Amino acid sequence: MKKKLKLGVFGFGCVGQGLYHVLHETQGIKAEIKKVCVKTKNKARPVPDSFFTFDKNEILNDLDIDIVVELIDDANAAFEILKASLEKGKAVVTANKKMLAEHLEEIFNLQKKHGKPVLYEGSVCGSIPIIRNLEEYYDNDLIQSIEGIFNGSTNFILTKVFEENKNYTEALKQAQELGFAESDPSLDVKGYDPKFKLVIAIAHTFGVFVKPEDVINIGIDRISDLDLKFARENGYNIKLVARAFKSGDKIFGFVAPQFIDPTNALASVRNEYNAVQVQGAFAEKQVFIGKGAGSYPTGSAVLSDISALTYQYSYEYKKLEQAHGLTFSNELITEAFVSFDEGTPITGNDFEELQSGYASQGKQYMVGKVTLEKLLHWSKIEGVGIILAPKAAFIPLSNIQTRSLSVA
Amino acid sequence: MKKKLKLGVFGFGCVGQGLYHVLHETQGIKAEIKKVCVKTKNKARPVPDSFFTFDKNEILNDLDIDIVVELIDDANAAFEILKASLEKGKAVVTANKKMLAEHLEEIFNLQKKHGKPVLYEGSVCGSIPIIRNLEEYYDNDLIQSIEGIFNGSTNFILTKVFEENKNYTEALKQAQELGFAESDPSLDVKGYDPKFKLVIAIAHTFGVFVKPEDVINIGIDRISDLDLKFARENGYNIKLVARAFKSGDKIFGFVAPQFIDPTNALASVRNEYNAVQVQGAFAEKQVFIGKGAGSYPTGSAVLSDISALTYQYSYEYKKLEQAHGLTFSNELITEAFVSFDEGTPITGNDFEELQSGYASQGKQYMVGKVTLEKLLHWSKIEGVGIILAPKAAFIPLSNIQTRSLSVA
Ligand SMILES: NC(=O)c1ccc[n+]([C@@H]2O[C@H](COP(=O)([O-])OP(=O)(O)OC[C@H]3O[C@@H](n4cnc5c(N)ncnc54)[C@H](OP(=O)(O)O)[C@@H]3O)[C@@H](O)[C@H]2O)c1
Ligand SMILES: NC(=O)c1ccc[n+]([C@@H]2O[C@H](COP(=O)([O-])OP(=O)(O)OC[C@H]3O[C@@H](n4cnc5c(N)ncnc54)[C@H](OP(=O)(O)O)[C@@H]3O)[C@@H](O)[C@H]2O)c1
Repeated sequence: MKKKLKLGVFGFGCVGQGLYHVLHETQGIKAEIKKVCVKTKNKARPVPDSFFTFDKNEILNDLDIDIVVELIDDANAAFEILKASLEKGKAVVTANKKMLAEHLEEIFNLQKKHGKPVLYEGSVCGSIPIIRNLEEYYDNDLIQSIEGIFNGSTNFILTKVFEENKNYTEALKQAQELGFAESDPSLDVKGYDPKFKLVIAIAHTFGVFVKPEDVINIGIDRISDLDLKFARENGYNIKLVARAFKSGDKIFGFVAPQFIDPTNALASVRNEYNAVQVQGAFAEKQVFIGKGAGSYPTGSAVLSDISALTYQYSYEYKKLEQAHGLTFSNELITEAFVSFDEGTPITGNDFEELQSGYASQGKQYMVGKVTLEKLLHWSKIEGVGIILAPKAAFIPLSNIQTRSLSVA
Repeated sequence: MKKKLKLGVFGFGCVGQGLYHVLHETQGIKAEIKKVCVKTKNKARPVPDSFFTFDKNEILNDLDIDIVVELIDDANAAFEILKASLEKGKAVVTANKKMLAEHLEEIFNLQKKHGKPVLYEGSVCGSIPIIRNLEEYYDNDLIQSIEGIFNGSTNFILTKVFEENKNYTEALKQAQELGFAESDPSLDVKGYDPKFKLVIAIAHTFGVFVKPEDVINIGIDRISDLDLKFARENGYNIKLVARAFKSGDKIFGFVAPQFIDPTNALASVRNEYNAVQVQGAFAEKQVFIGKGAGSYPTGSAVLSDISALTYQYSYEYKKLEQAHGLTFSNELITEAFVSFDEGTPITGNDFEELQSGYASQGKQYMVGKVTLEKLLHWSKIEGVGIILAPKAAFIPLSNIQTRSLSVA
């Protein structure tokens, strides 16, 4: 226990440098970086060259290195690094939500096979210790739902759009400059990034592995100026909300923009802050708020995983044993506001229940109950904006007795 | 690990019955209640008599019982139970903040001496897993401050007073009926209960043991209708705020009512909800919100400690090793609004800096910078209301170079 753990780090960008700083400013942590592997040669680095390698094997084959800290922006390469590290008997800490979401079940099995832990608190909502709390604290509370703002950069963009009347492009540029947006902004604005986090959260909340491609994500990139105007006129904010909940033996989950009224706890979550709201049977509603992105907040989450490894911590995935027969489903009806250009093939008949509809300035608006499946389909059409109603109900299709699904 | 842990429970009131319910509704928890010790004979109980005993030794001397769960409302008796349990080699779970605050250092030493853990998540902010997060997750983030709403019943009262224009007595009565207020309401309304929690939090945040009698608590019971009117007219809420922070090698901490403006994260924390805001060097601001009192939320926190004992969890009190030379201090200046009856011996000269003062309807008001020591003194005078300014600065006396403290 007195020995300092040796770290081999992959990646020295936003998070890698954050970890470097946070680690050096923290006393008493029994870990030190031995080597950092990066990709681009001849790039100016803030620390001496001798610190770096471009050969991953220099870390993977170093018997002296106990923990591989994977902080690169390439999910495929990251998964190869993770596998090789476990095979070499090294524990892994990663913040790579894309890689985790795509391979979570396999990573669960690899941990068992090699007897080495993989920790990834930094991957879900940056500084918020949600995985650890789901694993440790909510072990015995029957969780009904988990939802919140899981993406710092879109929340930053939406905050600037609403509070400073910025347009979308300006706000996106600012988020990227500040390091809140992923290198590829479509991961954020199309809702992939929060979906990856939701997939990870679902495993630790409900004990169910779901593939990211089976989870519906609707982004904020199709929200038009007219939609924003509608929100402002009604006193709403818009937030990109990730949510998952249990109903019967089904788990539902998706990411979509939603109108948020001022009394909603999410309304006051601004800029790059994230929020996670857990609804349990006994503890009832609990909210965790913290920075969801950025160099030091994410670096500090990564460091707390490293620290946990100094006392042999590993996730137990206890919910997996408890998830008897739970399966993931998209068979859901919800309430949405849909805006589209005239001529788009969307009609009132597409809704389970049309609540209102009107046309203005060449745009059409419809509000009503509609299946997730339809929303997904529409979200792929140019010019269609989809925003969930402020207090949208979520009704499993199986609960609707009288629906004649087969009638085309 | 397959053996079910046997619990001996003391107390079957609000929390005890909450635990009973939560335990029976939770699958997969490897623990069961063997016996419950209560005090009052011939009291109607919701479960069969055979379940109960009135003799504490029936639990303490039962070799079959692994864990004593102490949930009584008598701090002195509770401490005797805790000591006897550890001596008999039993782990202890307790929600008794008064007992913990009064004996924390001794309890720390007793755990080391007997090699048995004492867990007490339920004692601080009910369902919010703050102790566990301070112990595990904030291990490596340098925490600057911890503050928040640490008392459910005063927050419930203040919410009703502001939102429903109830008077103080009505609101207190309602809180008691709903089981949010302690049997002795003065513990809540005079700020003792949040102070006890603050004392526990300070140990786990900064690694410093402080005696409750050394921490200043100013309650809400002296807040007058005129003070409330002032708050309403200025668009403020009032919250009873517990806070502790580090400045140099000093830890400051106290409980006092404060005006809260609508942009403050605490403004939206309503009814029996509590909030804990942790400011760290790297993770930056994080907020935890959840039910701070009540039968099931507290029962569920107690159950999560029991669950943690099934895998041999114990607090490591790591901050104690890191707290080199930190000491607790009350030598602080802050900004407060002070209202008092004409004739009360309070003058502008008592303030380090008087910002405003006026008189109306036989009451006097003064707003300005003043020492904590003076506030404490005034808080004991009948008719004096003290409320911290909405964005009050907190200035250690040692930072004030030019102050001539000795000039009377
Ligand atoms: N930014 C955030 O706030 C945040 C928050 C939570 C999680 N994350 C996750 O953390 C990870 C890193 O994000 P980031 O923002 O730090 O990315 P970044 O700033 O773009 O940095 C990426 C780093 O990875 C290195 N790299 C890329 N491919 C590599 C390879 N095959 N081998 C070795 N090094 C390689 C790059 O090397 P060069 O320096 O040579 O180009 C660079 O140092 C991502 O998975 C991201 O999703 C980020
Ligand atoms: N209520 C909350 O929301 C809350 C939240 C957090 C923490 N807590 C803490 O949890 C503890 C219990 O609170 P509570 O609200 O459940 O109290 P409560 O409703 O007043 O119940 C107290 C229980 O303790 C029993 N008792 C008292 N002295 C005893 C003794 N010497 N030996 C055996 N049993 C004894 C009583 O027995 P009888 O039934 O025979 O009278 C009663 O069952 C307190 O430390 C409190 O501060 C409470």
